[in-house]
Amino acid sequence: MNNIPVVMIIFGGSGDLAHRKLYPALFNLYEQGLIRDNFAVIGTARRPWTHEYLREQVSDAIHETHKEVSENDVQAFVSHFYYQSHDVTNVEHYQALKELAQELDDRYSAQGNRIFYMAMAPRFFGTIATHINDQHLTSTGFNRIVVEKPFGRDLASAEKLNQQITASFAEDDIFRIDHYLGKEMVQNILPLRFTNPLIKNVWNSDNVKNIQVTLAERLGVEARGGYYETSGALRDMVQNHIFQIITLLAMPQPTDLTAKSIHQAKQELLDSLVMPTKEEIDQHFVRGQYLGSDTTFGYKQEPNVAEDSTTETFAAGQIKFQKGPVAGVPIYFRTGKEFREKESRIDIVLKHMSNPYGQAHSNNITIVIDPQMEIYITINGKKISTSGIRRENLDYTFAKSELAQVPDGYERLLHDVFVNDSTNFTHWSELKNYWKFIDLIEDAWHQDNQAGKKPVEYLPYRMGPKAADQIFDSATEHWIYD
Amino acid sequence: MNNIPVVMIIFGGSGDLAHRKLYPALFNLYEQGLIRDNFAVIGTARRPWTHEYLREQVSDAIHETHKEVSENDVQAFVSHFYYQSHDVTNVEHYQALKELAQELDDRYSAQGNRIFYMAMAPRFFGTIATHINDQHLTSTGFNRIVVEKPFGRDLASAEKLNQQITASFAEDDIFRIDHYLGKEMVQNILPLRFTNPLIKNVWNSDNVKNIQVTLAERLGVEARGGYYETSGALRDMVQNHIFQIITLLAMPQPTDLTAKSIHQAKQELLDSLVMPTKEEIDQHFVRGQYLGSDTTFGYKQEPNVAEDSTTETFAAGQIKFQKGPVAGVPIYFRTGKEFREKESRIDIVLKHMSNPYGQAHSNNITIVIDPQMEIYITINGKKISTSGIRRENLDYTFAKSELAQVPDGYERLLHDVFVNDSTNFTHWSELKNYWKFIDLIEDAWHQDNQAGKKPVEYLPYRMGPKAADQIFDSATEHWIYD
Repeated sequence: MNNIPVVMIIFGGSGDLAHRKLYPALFNLYEQGLIRDNFAVIGTARRPWTHEYLREQVSDAIHETHKEVSENDVQAFVSHFYYQSHDVTNVEHYQALKELAQELDDRYSAQGNRIFYMAMAPRFFGTIATHINDQHLTSTGFNRIVVEKPFGRDLASAEKLNQQITASFAEDDIFRIDHYLGKEMVQNILPLRFTNPLIKNVWNSDNVKNIQVTLAERLGVEARGGYYETSGALRDMVQNHIFQIITLLAMPQPTDLTAKSIHQAKQELLDSLVMPTKEEIDQHFVRGQYLGSDTTFGYKQEPNVAEDSTTETFAAGQIKFQKGPVAGVPIYFRTGKEFREKESRIDIVLKHMSNPYGQAHSNNITIVIDPQMEIYITINGKKISTSGIRRENLDYTFAKSELAQVPDGYERLLHDVFVNDSTNFTHWSELKNYWKFIDLIEDAWHQDNQAGKKPVEYLPYRMGPKAADQIFDSATEHWIYD
Repeated sequence: MNNIPVVMIIFGGSGDLAHRKLYPALFNLYEQGLIRDNFAVIGTARRPWTHEYLREQVSDAIHETHKEVSENDVQAFVSHFYYQSHDVTNVEHYQALKELAQELDDRYSAQGNRIFYMAMAPRFFGTIATHINDQHLTSTGFNRIVVEKPFGRDLASAEKLNQQITASFAEDDIFRIDHYLGKEMVQNILPLRFTNPLIKNVWNSDNVKNIQVTLAERLGVEARGGYYETSGALRDMVQNHIFQIITLLAMPQPTDLTAKSIHQAKQELLDSLVMPTKEEIDQHFVRGQYLGSDTTFGYKQEPNVAEDSTTETFAAGQIKFQKGPVAGVPIYFRTGKEFREKESRIDIVLKHMSNPYGQAHSNNITIVIDPQMEIYITINGKKISTSGIRRENLDYTFAKSELAQVPDGYERLLHDVFVNDSTNFTHWSELKNYWKFIDLIEDAWHQDNQAGKKPVEYLPYRMGPKAADQIFDSATEHWIYD
């Protein structure tokens, strides 16, 4: 599928996401011919930019991310870009936008196809969706909308936003983006699970003791304290990325690889998501806030953060499903700011098996997502020259030459939007389950706040709060990555 | 267990095996204290050496294999060595040997313990065993005998030799040595199979498509054409090493790790060894002879090889069992001279599994024994940036520092003889099964010879004869190592 005709409207065209991710990704797709002669992009934002200024910005964005490019290609590419100064609350501006879109549609023979991309602060998403609808911005071809996270801040607000969007767009045309689903190793989960008898044979409740998902960040909140205060680790990382990864790890095998079948398999799993009681939350969930060091602020001292903030910069917990291959198996997660190092990884820990050697370790399957890409299996082997048992890591680390081929998640996901493949986007029915669960935890923590029980403090640049080592079902479980 | 009191008699004390393997191994065991003050070694051979000359030879052997040794230790060690000129057919010489052994037993307080080691040409084994018996060389402590390969050249001769030996020794005191059983990675087979749920779960007829054992040698027969003419690849490699490896791969899990339980589990398997028909042998077995090159002789041109020799320098075939975890699974073997490279390895090939991705490859578990030590698992993963499937090798290669710790097989096996652990030696009941099978193949090939069907010729330094690619049960099978 090449040279897809489309007019794309990016709300937030002067923003950081557009500059760092969307423009370079669009250029790569242009170079591949996916979009070529019949596309136009309208960047909108409040500032009074000209078309020319936007084109310079786009050109800069490409040069910043590409070492060697043809200047002719860049110039040809940016000539498709147009700027529209836009106040999202002003209905007249939507009319101007509509006219420009129609004009460009004619000029580029875009066949009435529209992609709307919400790349602004999330508080504007509802307003934009409402006005796309009441000002009739959709056109006669396909109409798709891409929505950045967060999609709501709880189930109620997500439902409201969803209603605003579905007023103009069918569920199949709504692409709720989760850039973790664009990552190579996340996309590798299903192939690894379903094409390997070695792995599939043990990927079940009989053999898996627990599953561990860690999304550890080295950085603190930096300049984003204001946003972070409205979110916290649970909403920022668990509600989307961690839940999507866990869904891929625990879902049953889809009947085929169509987006429909994959979402069906996901939904089958999510319908069996176990909602924990307050007692279970107290036992298996931990929230934390990082302390300061000699050279860094503690979370409560960060700019735009309340002195008595109860926002968590670390969250750990347990998730279980009643159905699927790992029904009943505890799935533990951890995520947070100011870990010892950046590392996103999955550890599948197998149960011990009685054996004549006695002292064997657990077999683990580990998938490292970031910053390396790595798959390894930890097995037992004979200790050299004695009859004892020791661990051996069977390892596949991707070579640099391979890593160079890995497209950015945004490029991959934008590609999918153009070709109408919603496999790696979040469906509303999934999101609803995620928010239900998150609301339950947020509510429990809110009760704790009322009772004077605050997030635990943790030392920066270590492995988060010690309390997170106590969330396991049994004393024989522990974090594999430590 | 240290400072084991014993007088050891090595028949073939001036030979190559003693010099290269036994003396260095004994020195290492001496350095570890396993033998120390209360041992003596009598080397025997026809030549008229003195004690002093033997000691010089032993000292040389140690210096040739050890970079840094304490000369004091070497001198102390070699002082335990004595030479006895010995004609194995002369009964008077056994009397002299007996007297020397008794004298040394007194001098070193060896408590009447004796180890006899047959390190001579195999044609003398029966004679030596007979005279050990009729001249009453066994003593009042433990009496053990170590027998080098080959143990017979067919079932009948092996049975006769066994009778000659059992006249003086109980089965538990007979250590039929197979140096492959002393190799680190061969000793790793059972721990890998029985301590890893990941591996154990697929190690069965439901999941294993076939098993492949390759013992490839780069060298030709070199100066050993005379011996090789009496043996061939089948007797030289299959009857012992390959059968022992296959037994470890296919045996059921032993109830515990005692030698008795392990041999019981082996025997349970071997009792179900399927004896192929002549037609099956024609279909699944191949014998070959290497041709010459510009710079090397073909086998028939090698010194001491008959011009019309039908001795095989390559053998491939198929073995099946009716019982055990891989009952009915074809186990293919290949061994021979003048392969492309030296490589001893095991490949476990898993069956394909239906999956939504379609084009997956087989999962393989590979154990490389020589010249590297390596374990790897071949699985499927996602092709980078596309949705295709590709192979990924999860690999564990032993580090140089680890390899440096690996004791020589002879050191390990001699240690086991001293401590009376027969786990890694061939029991008579195993050997009998092996010979029965080998006799059947030899007989079929003898019939072929009569009918004018000779071994196939193969080009040197490749992968043996092409015909060996046709021995599989099905067209979807092929050699993984190629």
